[in-house]
Amino acid sequence: MYNYAHGGNAVYENNRENTIDLSANINPLGMPQKVKDAMTREIPNCTHYPDNTSGKLREKISEYENVIPEMIFCGNGASDIIFRLPRAAQAKKIMITAPAFSDYERAALSIGAEIHRHTLKPAAQFELDSGIAQSARNEKPDLIYLCNPNNPTGKLMKTGLIKELLENSRETNTNIAVDECFLDFTEKADEHTSKKYLKNYPNLIIIKAFTKLFALPGIRLGYAITSNETLIDHMHSHGPDWPVSNLAQAAGIAALEDAENYVKQTIRYISTERTKIEKELARLGYTVYKSEANYVFLQNPYPFDLREELDKKGIRIRSCGNYNGLDGTYYRIAVSTKENNAKLLTAIGTLK
Amino acid sequence: MYNYAHGGNAVYENNRENTIDLSANINPLGMPQKVKDAMTREIPNCTHYPDNTSGKLREKISEYENVIPEMIFCGNGASDIIFRLPRAAQAKKIMITAPAFSDYERAALSIGAEIHRHTLKPAAQFELDSGIAQSARNEKPDLIYLCNPNNPTGKLMKTGLIKELLENSRETNTNIAVDECFLDFTEKADEHTSKKYLKNYPNLIIIKAFTKLFALPGIRLGYAITSNETLIDHMHSHGPDWPVSNLAQAAGIAALEDAENYVKQTIRYISTERTKIEKELARLGYTVYKSEANYVFLQNPYPFDLREELDKKGIRIRSCGNYNGLDGTYYRIAVSTKENNAKLLTAIGTLK
Repeated sequence: MYNYAHGGNAVYENNRENTIDLSANINPLGMPQKVKDAMTREIPNCTHYPDNTSGKLREKISEYENVIPEMIFCGNGASDIIFRLPRAAQAKKIMITAPAFSDYERAALSIGAEIHRHTLKPAAQFELDSGIAQSARNEKPDLIYLCNPNNPTGKLMKTGLIKELLENSRETNTNIAVDECFLDFTEKADEHTSKKYLKNYPNLIIIKAFTKLFALPGIRLGYAITSNETLIDHMHSHGPDWPVSNLAQAAGIAALEDAENYVKQTIRYISTERTKIEKELARLGYTVYKSEANYVFLQNPYPFDLREELDKKGIRIRSCGNYNGLDGTYYRIAVSTKENNAKLLTAIGTLK
Repeated sequence: MYNYAHGGNAVYENNRENTIDLSANINPLGMPQKVKDAMTREIPNCTHYPDNTSGKLREKISEYENVIPEMIFCGNGASDIIFRLPRAAQAKKIMITAPAFSDYERAALSIGAEIHRHTLKPAAQFELDSGIAQSARNEKPDLIYLCNPNNPTGKLMKTGLIKELLENSRETNTNIAVDECFLDFTEKADEHTSKKYLKNYPNLIIIKAFTKLFALPGIRLGYAITSNETLIDHMHSHGPDWPVSNLAQAAGIAALEDAENYVKQTIRYISTERTKIEKELARLGYTVYKSEANYVFLQNPYPFDLREELDKKGIRIRSCGNYNGLDGTYYRIAVSTKENNAKLLTAIGTLK
């Protein structure tokens, strides 16, 4: 039975138009005006099919990511990449951390792959350690999905661990997908990105999206980077020819025009606000797991459902009860505008 | 090796900005102004994730198609439906006509299904006869893709044949997908649609798109209709959760606001212009296979490549050399604006 297992849909519920939605991790700085303008200009061109190769967009991404365009595949959101990848790689056995973004498991289930879950421990702050490298050596999965920083915990992987996994994977013939959709929100993106390994490890695939960073989830635009051109070829073959609409291509190109400033501003803003929220939540007695991303991850020690209580006050947060490896006492809350963050803290403050 | 096997991309080739592109079958009446306006209004809402159920859009389609919303699944273009379907149906053996739209075969290949091609004969005007029902009884495929009217031949299936196939398929447990993407361009849509069989045959899936009829291929919007709710459930599970962007949902809703008038006007226009083009091509000695759709299908008896010759004159048509069951002497030409059609005929007139 199909179940929607994500945040971000309060707006489509009855009488929820005015809900402050902190259940999806969208950049609170909002969609850049240039992106809106570019899409408006592109509308009349939608009588043409999209460029199936997303040629101009890939050139722009190529400059932003500092990789050649041939290493990029664009899709209908990161989730399109997440679904094409195991098909393109013909993965039969897939390793996933628990907790992690639920689409990895959905994609694995949809092709009937055997799933191995590597459980992250609260006592270890949900941090990934080299135990996963050991598991990978034993299990020899065809594909491992990693998320850096992880969703919903906000934890960055230790530098070196991905290298270790990549070294192993040469022997076990494992594809390593590193989802960096939230990495550009962190202050340590340059240090933590796996891009430096792309050239030497053709079994590395980095997944990224415009969705969160440029606040355009409604447009659907994500991409994969890998030096394995055969895999890119197979990603083309394992889905529709025109995954990316004209409007999404135009939006992506415009978003990257002025990306550097926007991203810098975003990082500074997120860091300050996240710290503020985390401190206050800790002060109120919540167990806060220090996040590096644009969301806060916490456990509620009190005997009430934090999501339900905040829902009554017009604020929607993400319960993590449906994440493997977590339960209903864990929550993820997006860092939002100053106004929304203040309202969140006031609302939580009245609860106990 | 991935190959792009469609028309409609002249605009992305170097120095081809001014080419008259008749290689994709887009409604020459153009995208309705209401659709453009609706998308412009929707742009600011793209900071929200799309409604993953396409709720409002499905309600609108439900009125247009006269089926309940629960029978509709919306996707990222008809090709998203074509790719999700064999996965959702777990099809191992798939029957396809030759020639037919190439995505059926791409989708079948991508899941490693066994493919059975039912070849249509030029001597029979490429019309489908009950030989396919016999083949289906023998082969017992899990899925048959039909296209009505067929692409690229423009031929409608005989009424009764789909009924025969559906009756058979109860025993053989075969899903029958009928692609009606071009049906609303014909004068006989009401008579030829398979919608009347949906209730009694849960193994019938109708595929439709906004792409061609409303001239918005750049937006990506298609849908499936079936009374098999489990199959719809599986289509959700076999791909990204948010297949349809906010903009595509807004565009679809607006397109259906005033669809009746627009479609009527389209049918009248296409019929007149197609007949004019077909007559002139026949007069010039080309073998014209009478089409019911918004394109003309012909064979060239002359010793030159019609596509190449017209390319030199700034007109792009679709060579059918890469369709199974056809060769490079067959061509498909979209019915376009009066001005473009006149230019086409003038250009062809000078060739021999």
